[in-house]
Amino acid sequence: MIRPAAWTFAALVATMPAALAQSAAPVLLDPSGYAGVRGAAAQPPLFTGEFKRVKALVDKAMATPIDVPVPKDPGGGYTHEQHKRNYTALYGAGLLYRITGEPAYADYARRLLLAYATLYPTLGPHPAKANEAAGRLFWQSLNDSVWLVYGVQGYDAIRDTLSVADRKTIDDQVFRRMAEFLSVGNAASFNRIHNHATWAAAGVGMTGYVLRDPELVARSLRGTDKSGKAGFLAQVDQLFSPDGYYTEGPYYQRYALQPFVVFAHAIAANQPQLKIWERRDGVLLKAIRSTIQLTHRGYFFPLNDAMPDKSLKTDELYQAVAIGYAATRDPTFLSIAQWQGRSTLTPDGIAVARDLASGMARPFPFASQLFRDGSQGDQGALAVLRSGKGDDAEVLVAKNSAMGMGHGHFDKLNWILYDAGNPIVSDYGSARFLNIESKDGGRYLKENESWAKQTIAHNTLVVNQTSHFDGKWRDGEEHAPRQLFFSGEGATKVSTAEMVGAYPGVTFRRTLVQLPLGKGGPMVLDLLRVTGDKPATYDLPLHYAGHVIDMGFAATPEAAARPVLGPANGYQHIWVDATGTLGANGATLTWITDKRFYTYRMLPPEGATLILGESGANDPRFNLRREPVLIQRAAGKANAAFVSLLEPHGAYDPAAETTVASQSQVKALHHVRGSDGDLVRIQPVKGAAVIVAIADDMDPAKSHSAVIDGHTIRWTGHFARIDGEAK
Amino acid sequence: MIRPAAWTFAALVATMPAALAQSAAPVLLDPSGYAGVRGAAAQPPLFTGEFKRVKALVDKAMATPIDVPVPKDPGGGYTHEQHKRNYTALYGAGLLYRITGEPAYADYARRLLLAYATLYPTLGPHPAKANEAAGRLFWQSLNDSVWLVYGVQGYDAIRDTLSVADRKTIDDQVFRRMAEFLSVGNAASFNRIHNHATWAAAGVGMTGYVLRDPELVARSLRGTDKSGKAGFLAQVDQLFSPDGYYTEGPYYQRYALQPFVVFAHAIAANQPQLKIWERRDGVLLKAIRSTIQLTHRGYFFPLNDAMPDKSLKTDELYQAVAIGYAATRDPTFLSIAQWQGRSTLTPDGIAVARDLASGMARPFPFASQLFRDGSQGDQGALAVLRSGKGDDAEVLVAKNSAMGMGHGHFDKLNWILYDAGNPIVSDYGSARFLNIESKDGGRYLKENESWAKQTIAHNTLVVNQTSHFDGKWRDGEEHAPRQLFFSGEGATKVSTAEMVGAYPGVTFRRTLVQLPLGKGGPMVLDLLRVTGDKPATYDLPLHYAGHVIDMGFAATPEAAARPVLGPANGYQHIWVDATGTLGANGATLTWITDKRFYTYRMLPPEGATLILGESGANDPRFNLRREPVLIQRAAGKANAAFVSLLEPHGAYDPAAETTVASQSQVKALHHVRGSDGDLVRIQPVKGAAVIVAIADDMDPAKSHSAVIDGHTIRWTGHFARIDGEAK
Repeated sequence: MIRPAAWTFAALVATMPAALAQSAAPVLLDPSGYAGVRGAAAQPPLFTGEFKRVKALVDKAMATPIDVPVPKDPGGGYTHEQHKRNYTALYGAGLLYRITGEPAYADYARRLLLAYATLYPTLGPHPAKANEAAGRLFWQSLNDSVWLVYGVQGYDAIRDTLSVADRKTIDDQVFRRMAEFLSVGNAASFNRIHNHATWAAAGVGMTGYVLRDPELVARSLRGTDKSGKAGFLAQVDQLFSPDGYYTEGPYYQRYALQPFVVFAHAIAANQPQLKIWERRDGVLLKAIRSTIQLTHRGYFFPLNDAMPDKSLKTDELYQAVAIGYAATRDPTFLSIAQWQGRSTLTPDGIAVARDLASGMARPFPFASQLFRDGSQGDQGALAVLRSGKGDDAEVLVAKNSAMGMGHGHFDKLNWILYDAGNPIVSDYGSARFLNIESKDGGRYLKENESWAKQTIAHNTLVVNQTSHFDGKWRDGEEHAPRQLFFSGEGATKVSTAEMVGAYPGVTFRRTLVQLPLGKGGPMVLDLLRVTGDKPATYDLPLHYAGHVIDMGFAATPEAAARPVLGPANGYQHIWVDATGTLGANGATLTWITDKRFYTYRMLPPEGATLILGESGANDPRFNLRREPVLIQRAAGKANAAFVSLLEPHGAYDPAAETTVASQSQVKALHHVRGSDGDLVRIQPVKGAAVIVAIADDMDPAKSHSAVIDGHTIRWTGHFARIDGEAK
Repeated sequence: MIRPAAWTFAALVATMPAALAQSAAPVLLDPSGYAGVRGAAAQPPLFTGEFKRVKALVDKAMATPIDVPVPKDPGGGYTHEQHKRNYTALYGAGLLYRITGEPAYADYARRLLLAYATLYPTLGPHPAKANEAAGRLFWQSLNDSVWLVYGVQGYDAIRDTLSVADRKTIDDQVFRRMAEFLSVGNAASFNRIHNHATWAAAGVGMTGYVLRDPELVARSLRGTDKSGKAGFLAQVDQLFSPDGYYTEGPYYQRYALQPFVVFAHAIAANQPQLKIWERRDGVLLKAIRSTIQLTHRGYFFPLNDAMPDKSLKTDELYQAVAIGYAATRDPTFLSIAQWQGRSTLTPDGIAVARDLASGMARPFPFASQLFRDGSQGDQGALAVLRSGKGDDAEVLVAKNSAMGMGHGHFDKLNWILYDAGNPIVSDYGSARFLNIESKDGGRYLKENESWAKQTIAHNTLVVNQTSHFDGKWRDGEEHAPRQLFFSGEGATKVSTAEMVGAYPGVTFRRTLVQLPLGKGGPMVLDLLRVTGDKPATYDLPLHYAGHVIDMGFAATPEAAARPVLGPANGYQHIWVDATGTLGANGATLTWITDKRFYTYRMLPPEGATLILGESGANDPRFNLRREPVLIQRAAGKANAAFVSLLEPHGAYDPAAETTVASQSQVKALHHVRGSDGDLVRIQPVKGAAVIVAIADDMDPAKSHSAVIDGHTIRWTGHFARIDGEAK
């Protein structure tokens, strides 16, 4: 962690530009960024769209009388929504004033803020406060922080139009009071190392710049006691991993990102000496980029409590892309803005719109990459393997990351897969219908606990039909997986991770290999080894997204009625369609997703059985989506290995009415365990066999050997691929 | 039916241009249509794409030795596929020769045809013949006809490059022999009024033009006996309804269309006096346009045995659009070609590509329209109600058409609905995985009979859990519905139809109204009245496409296991999720589809119950898609009325995280039966009530009255909408 020695209050003050001290000019946006915009004949399309949208919103607000109600309602209620509308209108009015020069916008902001100046000093704790830290305008102080972040940006844009008296009234009665309340008035919350505290820090710090108040800036950066143990800099140092990964997962990373980048942008403008963008090897820029990397076709990988329909088309990312572009001029951000079809009305957003319109965009470099978790990078990782850069590439995500706090799922060493633009091996995400009243008011549903978080709802090992950490997330926080190996460079890509402590006495290790072979997208080889201290039942579910085309095993369907798989831990939500038994050569399941076929070939432990099921049981309110699942079950073993191969193949073309290779192009899969590693041989229908060798040891210099079909295979290092030998 | 008196052989001969008689110049395509194409610097994109595609295909064929195997295999086998490849290559080579002037293409066609000239005369009936009329090159003569249609077009393009000797050899040993075989050699098939016979007629007739043989032309147009009872003209007169609708439904209309338009195009070029495009008030052009009208976002309405993924992107429609544009120069065809992204390499296709590139396309006029069924237009109809022209319009299709032969479904007065680009009320289409080997070789699955065709799999009345016509399609052919009323002009659109004979002693009548009210898309009011001669159980299923958001009735879920609904007629394929009971005010079910909410509000007969289920039971091979269904069940009634209202409302925006109006905007639905009609009152949450009045009588001049809530409502004609009265 980088922490320069000389973080003193005096040093902080010294970095604030003296020239600004007596001016009221904007400090959060650079008015010169609008040069050439006002009155120009042709505007970049992205700007025009944004301008129309914000103008419509602000004009509508200005057409009704100022409404600054006494706070009363909790989230969703009238006063709550009205104060949200007010900060949105205030922020918009400030930007529109800068863009158009229309005094009406500045005057609207003035009148609105004077109304707040009358109300705010009269307020105590919000009457609808609950368990969360209470706000004054809102039931929780988080919303007050958000008000301040937007409000102070709107104020900054018009502050120089005010009379000295009005400016003093608003400075003192609104912003200074809010900043005091949210910092020293709410010190416990403010001094947390948590993304909610980042909103407070951003609001307080930006208020410090606007009010030319070094004390507020110092608190925001280093905590109320200015020791540096709390505050924004500590948050930057501790809330992201060295790779810019945020532990709650991509969906929440998107949400957490906004106050970081907005405040960093303000710091960079007002205290460039702090080199905030360079801090921790540029971790904030890494965080912007990793947020984008953790998407497929623009949609966030739906890990942990995530809404699967959440994409980069979201306010947080319009801001982050504009600010990231301002900080770097990296033209690959422009292609993201193009996909978003949106930007911001800030000078940064205008630069994005202008440079995009002039053809400067370059493709964003989606890549195979390891995202370590934990502030020290030692709490596991998210391993992303991509067969290419485009939307149709095969993308494998190995979720070897830490618990990720209360929104984390019990899914150590889980994985998901996309191919040809579609989810193939899926994650349920969260059980929630955002903002839909009849679905528990849009909150997380109880099925989020009973299904979506449970291990059986994921693609990883379940022991004795219970979830990892017995479903207790605080226990999960104590046990992160270890990412043992990652290779994302060559055509064959590999991730190996190990989990200890998800169950007492049980260790499991998983190697996932993206393995190009034959004509289709890469095959995925999955070797999961579990060692336990006593015999147990091991379930390995695969949540596949597609329609079954063929079953290569003897299946007994449930014809008369469809039973429930089990009593608890998510099993109560699975309807059983059929059970199956395996021959010596394992089993296959083939499905079609969109226009391509996928065959999943299984070599579970001897005696294992198969279960074909679907989510949706014990769901009287139809809260769950119905999605198919295949479970390999091995009972009565202490140690076991599951070897599975997922093979994309063929093509279905409904327009041309042609179908190619709807059947697996693999003839056989064979696995042997050697003394210190595993060999898996894949024999295609056409062409030479491939042998994959996986050593237990990670040492790149160590040599290994094992025998398969009478041939001795020798390799060096953790992983090797041997083509065309040992037929 | 238009049938000019003077259809004599002499008259036919007289219409063939004498000037052509001794020439060998192309008669099926106009070589001048390629003027400006050869060697031009810039080509229209659609042409370039097509040219590359065909050139790759033909060049690949030319790179291997000529292969004209002795016929042996059935469909899918080697000799079958090779003869298909040959006609495709022959047709492509002819077009490429005309476009490029490369003698190699003409020479390849010559060598290929000389090989056929050696083989063909030696052939008897195909060794793999089955129940269908046997071909010589193929197991069924239909494929031989298709060979001839493509082959003779390829031959026509290069025939003038041949020596007199080669030309005579190919004329006599290939084409004349084929045409003889497919006409007089196969008279029973040739003289049918059936779309398979249209392929034969097209092949024989086009051969007649190319070989300058009026006898072949006459047979093709008027049947082997030239009486006019059979042949192409009789097919044109009898196989389409006056509105250009083909009785098997949109999916098969697409398939049937091709030989009609290809041959009509040849007739128009060679015997313009026949005015083939004007025949029956332009029925063939109507057929092209109606094929396009019967789509949603380019995908065919999936009625009867249809694949739901079949769109206008299909060879038949590339041909039909090019030929239709050549015949009419209607610029709205160009927008269809644009959507297709394909055209043909014929001069007509080049005109499409060129005019599209020069910006002449106009939107295709998708409209509310009635498509009568039956050659006389008296066998029911397909009623299409569209709220607008665009892809997002609400489209209601009332399937009041006839049985449609063996691919028809038992779904009299069925309906489907699209809104905002999505299916909302759906039709299963056919149970089939086209060309997928493991799914019964890609043929119709047995679940096509046991589920997809059955009445319960549709959105219409089921009596005593049996299907219409007891599931016998030949009985269905005897009983078409009657379309009693259609109004597609105003904002409120109406279809009323009646079915007699689907069940002994049972008549049912259905009015579907597209009713704009409030902010969302139009509501759909559904009044279904049934009168029977004895008490029965009436089921009214609704196959909705979406996720349940709210249930406005008391539901009892099946928690422990999920039972099957019934033993047969499709009921064996439904899993029961829950059953429900209704209050006096009926019941509601709200679901979300994509970004919009839909509430289905039911007023079934008193004592009715509800069943929530899903398809997929008794399906051991996972042949069925799992789709939800809601069934209203009224038991023990002879006469009954089901009043239902489907209401699109609100919006869900995952990007902005906003949800609007997720709850129904209707407060109450009320229905009364008067002495000679029905009144339904819809009371919105905001705004005035609307009363819909539906008289039993269709007479537009007749007056009616009925009383609702103490108010007397008077109206004239079958249907009236009364806004803002009788609160």
